[in-house]
Amino acid sequence: MDYERAVGEVWAATRPHIGAGKVADYIPDLICVDPVQFGFAVATVDGELHQVGDAEVPFSIQSISKAFALAHVLGHDDASIWRRVNREPSGTRFNSLIQLEIERGVPRNPFINAGALLVTDQLLADTGDACGALCAFLAAETGNPDLTYDPAMAESETRTGNRNRSLAYLMADFGNVLNPVDEMLDHYFRQCSIMASCVELARAGLVLARHGVRRDGTRLLSKQDARRINAIMLTCGTYDAAGEFAYRVGLPCKSGVGGGILAIVPDRCAIAAWGPGLDEKGNSVTAAMALETFGNVTGLSIF
Amino acid sequence: MDYERAVGEVWAATRPHIGAGKVADYIPDLICVDPVQFGFAVATVDGELHQVGDAEVPFSIQSISKAFALAHVLGHDDASIWRRVNREPSGTRFNSLIQLEIERGVPRNPFINAGALLVTDQLLADTGDACGALCAFLAAETGNPDLTYDPAMAESETRTGNRNRSLAYLMADFGNVLNPVDEMLDHYFRQCSIMASCVELARAGLVLARHGVRRDGTRLLSKQDARRINAIMLTCGTYDAAGEFAYRVGLPCKSGVGGGILAIVPDRCAIAAWGPGLDEKGNSVTAAMALETFGNVTGLSIF
Amino acid sequence: MDYERAVGEVWAATRPHIGAGKVADYIPDLICVDPVQFGFAVATVDGELHQVGDAEVPFSIQSISKAFALAHVLGHDDASIWRRVNREPSGTRFNSLIQLEIERGVPRNPFINAGALLVTDQLLADTGDACGALCAFLAAETGNPDLTYDPAMAESETRTGNRNRSLAYLMADFGNVLNPVDEMLDHYFRQCSIMASCVELARAGLVLARHGVRRDGTRLLSKQDARRINAIMLTCGTYDAAGEFAYRVGLPCKSGVGGGILAIVPDRCAIAAWGPGLDEKGNSVTAAMALETFGNVTGLSIF
Amino acid sequence: MDYERAVGEVWAATRPHIGAGKVADYIPDLICVDPVQFGFAVATVDGELHQVGDAEVPFSIQSISKAFALAHVLGHDDASIWRRVNREPSGTRFNSLIQLEIERGVPRNPFINAGALLVTDQLLADTGDACGALCAFLAAETGNPDLTYDPAMAESETRTGNRNRSLAYLMADFGNVLNPVDEMLDHYFRQCSIMASCVELARAGLVLARHGVRRDGTRLLSKQDARRINAIMLTCGTYDAAGEFAYRVGLPCKSGVGGGILAIVPDRCAIAAWGPGLDEKGNSVTAAMALETFGNVTGLSIF
Repeated sequence: MDYERAVGEVWAATRPHIGAGKVADYIPDLICVDPVQFGFAVATVDGELHQVGDAEVPFSIQSISKAFALAHVLGHDDASIWRRVNREPSGTRFNSLIQLEIERGVPRNPFINAGALLVTDQLLADTGDACGALCAFLAAETGNPDLTYDPAMAESETRTGNRNRSLAYLMADFGNVLNPVDEMLDHYFRQCSIMASCVELARAGLVLARHGVRRDGTRLLSKQDARRINAIMLTCGTYDAAGEFAYRVGLPCKSGVGGGILAIVPDRCAIAAWGPGLDEKGNSVTAAMALETFGNVTGLSIF
Repeated sequence: MDYERAVGEVWAATRPHIGAGKVADYIPDLICVDPVQFGFAVATVDGELHQVGDAEVPFSIQSISKAFALAHVLGHDDASIWRRVNREPSGTRFNSLIQLEIERGVPRNPFINAGALLVTDQLLADTGDACGALCAFLAAETGNPDLTYDPAMAESETRTGNRNRSLAYLMADFGNVLNPVDEMLDHYFRQCSIMASCVELARAGLVLARHGVRRDGTRLLSKQDARRINAIMLTCGTYDAAGEFAYRVGLPCKSGVGGGILAIVPDRCAIAAWGPGLDEKGNSVTAAMALETFGNVTGLSIF
Repeated sequence: MDYERAVGEVWAATRPHIGAGKVADYIPDLICVDPVQFGFAVATVDGELHQVGDAEVPFSIQSISKAFALAHVLGHDDASIWRRVNREPSGTRFNSLIQLEIERGVPRNPFINAGALLVTDQLLADTGDACGALCAFLAAETGNPDLTYDPAMAESETRTGNRNRSLAYLMADFGNVLNPVDEMLDHYFRQCSIMASCVELARAGLVLARHGVRRDGTRLLSKQDARRINAIMLTCGTYDAAGEFAYRVGLPCKSGVGGGILAIVPDRCAIAAWGPGLDEKGNSVTAAMALETFGNVTGLSIF
Repeated sequence: MDYERAVGEVWAATRPHIGAGKVADYIPDLICVDPVQFGFAVATVDGELHQVGDAEVPFSIQSISKAFALAHVLGHDDASIWRRVNREPSGTRFNSLIQLEIERGVPRNPFINAGALLVTDQLLADTGDACGALCAFLAAETGNPDLTYDPAMAESETRTGNRNRSLAYLMADFGNVLNPVDEMLDHYFRQCSIMASCVELARAGLVLARHGVRRDGTRLLSKQDARRINAIMLTCGTYDAAGEFAYRVGLPCKSGVGGGILAIVPDRCAIAAWGPGLDEKGNSVTAAMALETFGNVTGLSIF
C-alpha cells in the first residue's frame, strides 16, 4: 500500500476546500480557532507515519475522547457499563432526548453525549481521575509526555454546559449516575478539552487498529472488545451521519466538534483528519472529504 | 479457513435452542410455519458450499428481499433513489414514523418498511415487474428455475397490510411515490413472499460478497455500490438491533420476519441462517445465535 | 345584551383586515375561494338573529362538521365511541401522529382528523349514511331544505386525501375501524364539503347553546352530552391553538380550514364567523379576530 | 343554591372511597401522609363557607401553587411571561419534553413543570422572594397569619428534584432563565411545599372566582387576566387529564400531587377537595370524584 501517494492525493483533493464549513460556535473557546487549517496523518501498525498539512497542530479533540474513554472502561473488564448504556444508533438529536426519557435514563449508545457522560462517570468510579487516566494513556501512546487538556477550554465548556447538565440530571433522576453530577461533568468537560494533533491521534488510535494492543505491547482491552468499539464507531461515531459515513467512508470513525475525525482500518492503520469547519450535522467538512478521498484512492474499506 | 468445522460448531451450539423465539403472528400464513426448524449454509466466493440442518427447506424471505431489491435499483444506475430515501439508522419503530412525518415523507433508509416500499416503487418504475425481476435474478444465481414467490403468502400479506398501506399513503401525500399505491403494494407484498432456502440465499448473497459480480461473471452493480449496500446492511439491516448485531456479529446482515438472516463477509463468503422463532425486535433467535457462534469460531468480522 | 351594537363593533374592528391570512391550499377547490369575504352571525336562544357582511354566503364548513357529527353519535346513545377515541388535547400535529402510534390507534380526541374519521365511521355504522344524516339535520335546523354538500369539493378532497387515507389505514391496522376504509373516507370527505352560511351555522349551533334541544323542541342529545361537546370544543376545537382560543376568546369554538368558526355561549347564543384567510395554525384570521372583539364588547365568556 | 345539601351529597358519594388511589411516592415526605383522609370545602363570593371531612387539615398544595404564582406575575402587569411560556395543552409528559426541545426552551404552558419553573423565575425577579410573596398573599386571603411552607418538605423536594433540575438547565441552555438556576429551584421547591387546608385553599381561590378581586376589595390582577387564568386551568390544569376534567367536571381546576384540587365557578364560588391517593395521571381519585359529584348535584358547569 503506497500510503505516501494516497496522502498526497488527499492533500490535492482537500486543499482547495480548506476553510470550508462553520466553526462550532457554542463553546466560546472553540470559535477562536483559525478555520483555515487542515491536517491529515496515517499511522500504520507496521510503524509507518505519513502526514500532510497542519498534522502536528494540537486541537481540541472533543468527542473523539469518547472512543478512548470507552476503551478504558471496557479494558477494566467493566461490562457493567452495558447495563447503563445501550448500543443502538440514536437517530436525530431530539430523538435521543425523547428516547432517554422513554428508555428511562438509559442512553442509546456510549457516543451520544448522554452515554458518554455515563462512560466518564464509570471511568471516574474506576480510576478516581477519568481525565487524568485518558491523558496518561494518550501521553504514553504518542510519546508526548505533555499531552493534556486545556484548562481554559474546559472552563469555557463548564460555563456553557447547561445542556449536558440537563442530560446528567435527567439520568440522575433515573438513578443512573454513580458520582456527584458536578464532579462527573468536570471530568467530562476536561476530557473533551484534551489537545492533540493529527499525528498524535493517529498514533493513539492504533490501539484500536491493533485490536487492543498498546504501543508497548501490553493489552489495553480484549480483541473482542476492541472490535466492538470499532463496530460502535461505525454505527454511532459521527452523530446523525453514521449511515452516511458508513456509506461514503466505509470505516469506523469518531468525530468531534473541534473538527477532528479518527478512522480505523482494522489490522492496518489509524487515520486522523482535522479541519475546524463543520457541516450541519457537526462533522468536519474537510476531514470527511479527506477520509472519503483516502478510501477511494486506497480501496481501504471494511465492506 | 475450515468452514466445515465451523458449521459443525454452529450446529452444536444452536441445536439445543431450535424452536426458541416466537413465530411472527401478524401475517396469517407465517404463523403456520413449524417453529422447530433450523438451517444454516455458507457459500464461499471460491465455490464451496457448507450446510447443516434444514438448509434446503424454502421459507419466506420477507425483508431479506430488500437487499436484493436495492442492489437491482442501484444496478440500474439509479442513484435517484437517494433523493427519495435517506441512509441513516432509524432508531425505534415509532421514531421512523415521526421521522417520516418530520422529514416530509423521505424515509430514513431503504430497509425500514417505508424506504423499502420506495425501492420497490423505483424497481417497478425501472422494470415494469419488480417482483418478477427479483425472482429471475434469484433463479439465475441459485440455479433453481422454479424459485418464485408464494401467491397465498402474498395474498395473506395483502389482507393484513394496513400498516404498509398507511405508510405508502403518507409518502404519497408528500409526493414521494411514482406508481399507483395499490400497484406498488402488490409488488412489495409479492417480493416479501419469495420462497428460498438457506442454500439458495447464501448463493444469491455471493453477489454482495463478490462486490457486485454475479454467478455468470457479469456485473449486477458497481463495486462501490455493492460495498455501500453492505454498509447499509450493517447500519440498518436488522431493525432496531443494528447496533447490537454490529457489536455481536460484526458482519453486514439483513434479516426477515420469516426467520432468515443473510450475512456477508466481503471477499469471502455469504452466510444464510434460518429459524422461524423471533426475538422481541423481530430477528430470528437461532439464526442470530448461529451467526454469532460462526463469528467467534472463525474470527471472521469486518471490524 | 345589545347584540346589534356588538355585531356593529365586530364589523368595525374586522373590516380593515378582510382578506388577511392565507387561503388553504391543499384542497384544490378551496384555493379558488375569493379571500376578500367576511361574514358574522349571532343566533340567540330567544330567536334573535344578528348578522353582518357576507353572512349569507355559503362556504365549505370543513371541520366544523365534526361538532355536529359528534353530537349525532352521542345522540344515538353511542358512548361506545369513547372506547375508540380519547378526549385529550393533542398538542402539535406530529404529536398526534406519534400518539396515534403509541396509543395503539386510539386518537387523542374526536376533533383531530384521526378521531373525526372514527366519529364518521361510527355515524356511518349507526345510520348507513353519515353525511346524509348531517345534511338532513342541518336542513331542518336552518330551514334550508337545499342545504347539502358540494360534490365537486368532495371529489377534490378525495383526490388529495392521502394523508387522511394514511391515518385511516393506520387505525384499521389497530382494528379500530368498523366500515371499509374507502367507504368511511367517502362519507368523511362529503361531510367536510357541506356548504353553509354563517347565518345557517349559527342557527344550527343553537342545538349546543340549548344543551341538546333542537329547533323543533325535540332533543338531539342529553344536556350532559351537549355540555361535554362544548367542553371538547373548548379544549380541542381549534387545532393546536385551543389554549390560545380559550385564553383570547373564552368560548367553546370549532374551526374549519374553509375559514369558518362556530362559537357557543351556553344558554345564550351561537355565533358563526367566516373569513377564508387562515393563520399558520389553520384558523381563520378574521373570524378569530371577530370572536375576540365580540367577547371584549359583550363580556360574554364562560370563564 | 343549596350548597350545604350538595356538600352532604359529595360526602355520601365519596366516603366509601376514602383511601383510594396511590400516594405520590417520589417525594419522600409525601409518602408519609396518611392516605385515609378526605376534605372538601366551598367558599362562595357571598361569604358562605361549607365544608366536610378533613377540610381543616393542612396538606402540601404542590402544583396548586402554580395558579397563584401565575396570578401574581400577571398582577405585576408582567405580560412578558408570555414571551417565555406558551399557553397550549402539552399532551403527554414525554411530549412536553420533546416539545421543550423542539420549541427551543419555551414550555407549552405555565402549569407543566417547565413553565411553572419560569413563572417562579419571573416572580422571583419581580419580588426578590417568590415563595414569600405567595405565602403573604395566602395568609392575607385566608386570615391565617401562620400559613407558610414546610421546610422539611422543601428539603425533601430539593434532594429528589433532579428532573426539575434537568428541565431548568435545558431552559437555561436556551437562555430562558433569569435567575441562577439553583436559586430559582429553591423558590420553586418551597412554593410547592406550602401547607394549606381545603378551607384555606377555597378562600384563597375566591380571588379567581371574583375575577381578580382580593378579600380586602383590592385587585390582585385584571378581570381579563383572571378569566385567562381560569381558561388555562381548564385547558392545562390537571396534567394529561385536562380534557377528561373538562368533560367530567366542566370547571377550571388546578391539581397537585399532594392530592388537592382547586376548582373555580366564576362569579360563584371556589371549591377545594383533597384526598392523598392519586390516579395514574397524578390527580387525586377522591377529590376528582367529589368535584364530579358536586357538579352533577348542583348543575354548576361553565359549559
